[in-house]
Amino acid sequence: MRIADLDTPSLLVDLDRLEANLDRMARIVRSADLHLRPHTKTHKTPEIAKMQLARGAAGITVAKIGEAEVMADAGIDDIFIAHQVVGEKKIERLVELAKRVKVAVGVDSMDAAAPLSTAFALQGMRLPVLLEVDVGLRRCGVSAEEAPLLAREINTLPGLNLAGVFAYAGQVYAARNENEVAGIAAFECRTLTEVVQHLSHLAPVEGWVSGGSTPTAAHYTAGCGLTEIRPGTYVFNDRMQIDRWSARPEDCALTVLATVVSTPEPGRAVLDAGSKSLSTDQAPESPGYGMLKEDSGAVLVKLNEEHGFLDLSNAELKLRVGDRVEVIPNHCCTTVNLHDELVAVRKGEVVETWRIAARGKVK
Amino acid sequence: MRIADLDTPSLLVDLDRLEANLDRMARIVRSADLHLRPHTKTHKTPEIAKMQLARGAAGITVAKIGEAEVMADAGIDDIFIAHQVVGEKKIERLVELAKRVKVAVGVDSMDAAAPLSTAFALQGMRLPVLLEVDVGLRRCGVSAEEAPLLAREINTLPGLNLAGVFAYAGQVYAARNENEVAGIAAFECRTLTEVVQHLSHLAPVEGWVSGGSTPTAAHYTAGCGLTEIRPGTYVFNDRMQIDRWSARPEDCALTVLATVVSTPEPGRAVLDAGSKSLSTDQAPESPGYGMLKEDSGAVLVKLNEEHGFLDLSNAELKLRVGDRVEVIPNHCCTTVNLHDELVAVRKGEVVETWRIAARGKVK
Repeated sequence: MRIADLDTPSLLVDLDRLEANLDRMARIVRSADLHLRPHTKTHKTPEIAKMQLARGAAGITVAKIGEAEVMADAGIDDIFIAHQVVGEKKIERLVELAKRVKVAVGVDSMDAAAPLSTAFALQGMRLPVLLEVDVGLRRCGVSAEEAPLLAREINTLPGLNLAGVFAYAGQVYAARNENEVAGIAAFECRTLTEVVQHLSHLAPVEGWVSGGSTPTAAHYTAGCGLTEIRPGTYVFNDRMQIDRWSARPEDCALTVLATVVSTPEPGRAVLDAGSKSLSTDQAPESPGYGMLKEDSGAVLVKLNEEHGFLDLSNAELKLRVGDRVEVIPNHCCTTVNLHDELVAVRKGEVVETWRIAARGKVK
Repeated sequence: MRIADLDTPSLLVDLDRLEANLDRMARIVRSADLHLRPHTKTHKTPEIAKMQLARGAAGITVAKIGEAEVMADAGIDDIFIAHQVVGEKKIERLVELAKRVKVAVGVDSMDAAAPLSTAFALQGMRLPVLLEVDVGLRRCGVSAEEAPLLAREINTLPGLNLAGVFAYAGQVYAARNENEVAGIAAFECRTLTEVVQHLSHLAPVEGWVSGGSTPTAAHYTAGCGLTEIRPGTYVFNDRMQIDRWSARPEDCALTVLATVVSTPEPGRAVLDAGSKSLSTDQAPESPGYGMLKEDSGAVLVKLNEEHGFLDLSNAELKLRVGDRVEVIPNHCCTTVNLHDELVAVRKGEVVETWRIAARGKVK
């Protein structure tokens, strides 16, 4: 089957581009002597997680227990949940998960740590936890100053093993230039290194120091203080990454195949893909909600739920009702999350269709 | 089971509020002598569509064939697809659907009409089509001036039956006050009435004149020129509707139940619900990505994929790790689209769990 035979909207991944992206990140971490623990929330697809592991990834990262369960069911056995796990039902599921795979979680408060301790101690188990340190995003995490105290308190709890520290410097998406990206990566390394040095005095901590993201990935060097990075988006790339200087348009592997359903006036076309196929996330610099693979001058200026408003006034491309285009989304992670299936293509041929098995696993 | 026993994030619908919203819209259309053909893209749930039909709805509206197929499978037999149906695979499915239920579709060009004509004529069938007229949104649709010519051309095609006209005045979401909303509804009625008068000279057209939306629904009167309205959001309401003067906070029936996972500093809390549970759609006036049912001063100022950044600085509410809140989303339609299940609750008790059967039916 060829792409032309697919119904629309369809979510496509170009395997040549995907493999090149995977290879590039494998080279980046090798040259910086880092482990790679990719965040699989981007693709939510066990087949792609296995491609990452086959290229040397040390394990995977997920955001939710539901995602971890899907990946464990697929045979993946080293999983870091880079989120606070709070609530009785979730902790019950975490205990069950820890009985079958190696799983670690984030923690940034005694309120969150204490119930984990109780549950795991009761089972005679020890859960590896990573202390979350805020390195500037101001989301979760304790400050570098508060970290030693919390570490000491966590070390008094049975059932837990303080295995390291982690951070997410998400403020990188507001950086104004590549130097600022480098500065954010350097600050992250410096902060985590300081914290780990304090912890080695105050509380025994193993050497797991986890950070990184797709935009910062190329900015670490051997001895930077991190032991692993957790980029996610690099598998597909998107307009956000182009705006973050971490990808070129030709590195974008994910597209939404769409059909022109109306051409109400010259320079305008309406697609059968809207916010329910693409998401309304915006890129830091680029206008609109996506661009066409066929012509980067064409911009999706507005989305309704099932309509994409395409502005062709700066494009060479002419479109008629029935024509098909491929939209490069702003943010591949939220786009993937809207679809049940991902169609893997190579040179115009459909190779395979993957179920996005962890889609919708919000719990 | 009580709400307190649910894991989070969970999508909840308060049945008392849902029923009040359904009853209110049933009264509105009765008093304006209009048919109601609710847009079920809001809930994508056959159980709710049946509640709408039980209260007198004449049929339902959907955006995609995939949604129509789900609703037909659930026994609903009068469906308008308010979208252009373009592409060979979709037309094949439309023919199959038309063999088992009454289905009509929108059309705004001969390029879209001709393949429909060919396919239905080949089967010896006639597909009812509604001519889409642009009444100011500038999305799809022909102008009032172009409508008679296109109608005449459509009437030359076998296999089609020009059953009426339809419009969607989506520019209502940019209205600055309630008078402008009333003006948009009046313009819509005037435009469609003019078009229908022209068509009755030029081309035989039946009396199906379809318009309306939740914000404009209360602004029509008997004899306004429409025969039916297609509001969707009114079933749940949301912050967009509050901003459009068509709902009060206490009319919002849909919430996302979430847990506080971190309280990094006073006045801030982080929820386990982000853009993958709520969507990043914005409301016309209200800041942020949702507000709390418990305290309208609390605002979700930012979303990451699995984190909600809650600003409590204007709220009375104090929150600790492990506390739960209900978030009223900005846009219920895109929020529902992220979930597999909708938990129906009444006075704190879980009554039923519905599968959102048409979620993900983007094709």
